[in-house]
Amino acid sequence: MEKMAEADVKTALDRVPEWAEVNGEIQRTYRFDDFERAMVFVNKVADAAEARQHHPDIMIRYNKVTLTVSTHDAGGITEKDFELATTIDAFAG
Amino acid sequence: MEKMAEADVKTALDRVPEWAEVNGEIQRTYRFDDFERAMVFVNKVADAAEARQHHPDIMIRYNKVTLTVSTHDAGGITEKDFELATTIDAFAG
Repeated sequence: MEKMAEADVKTALDRVPEWAEVNGEIQRTYRFDDFERAMVFVNKVADAAEARQHHPDIMIRYNKVTLTVSTHDAGGITEKDFELATTIDAFAG
Repeated sequence: MEKMAEADVKTALDRVPEWAEVNGEIQRTYRFDDFERAMVFVNKVADAAEARQHHPDIMIRYNKVTLTVSTHDAGGITEKDFELATTIDAFAG
């Protein structure tokens, strides 16, 4: 999996408009009604991450969950990151 | 629940030596064998947090989990934070 060119990252971000590029990674913050619902989401993210062996950084602040994704082996953002982002967006509702 | 004096925070930290004071909160990073074991721990933390309605910030980076705790209503660190830290240390092993 190769690191994407910057122009390709910008194009790919159009497919997941809630995500933003931050310090060479892609990031989105999800908001839920409360902590319990945030944790349900985090566990779904964990399952998706384990299935792919591709793990986002996950920050939980009460009802807000921030995911930060890049591909360490490639030293940057890859299609794998966007595939994970798209999958997670689909079940985040 | 009142914000603790700095000297009392220092004394309380002696009871949970793996925790440190960071920017007016208390913080500890736990390391596990892998992401799955980290998530088992995070779910235990979530249950303890819900039971108390006292929620740490939880940062998960693969096998490392950083908890950051303070009492927002009190504007700083309280005994409630140390009670949560002690409880979590007990099941973190």
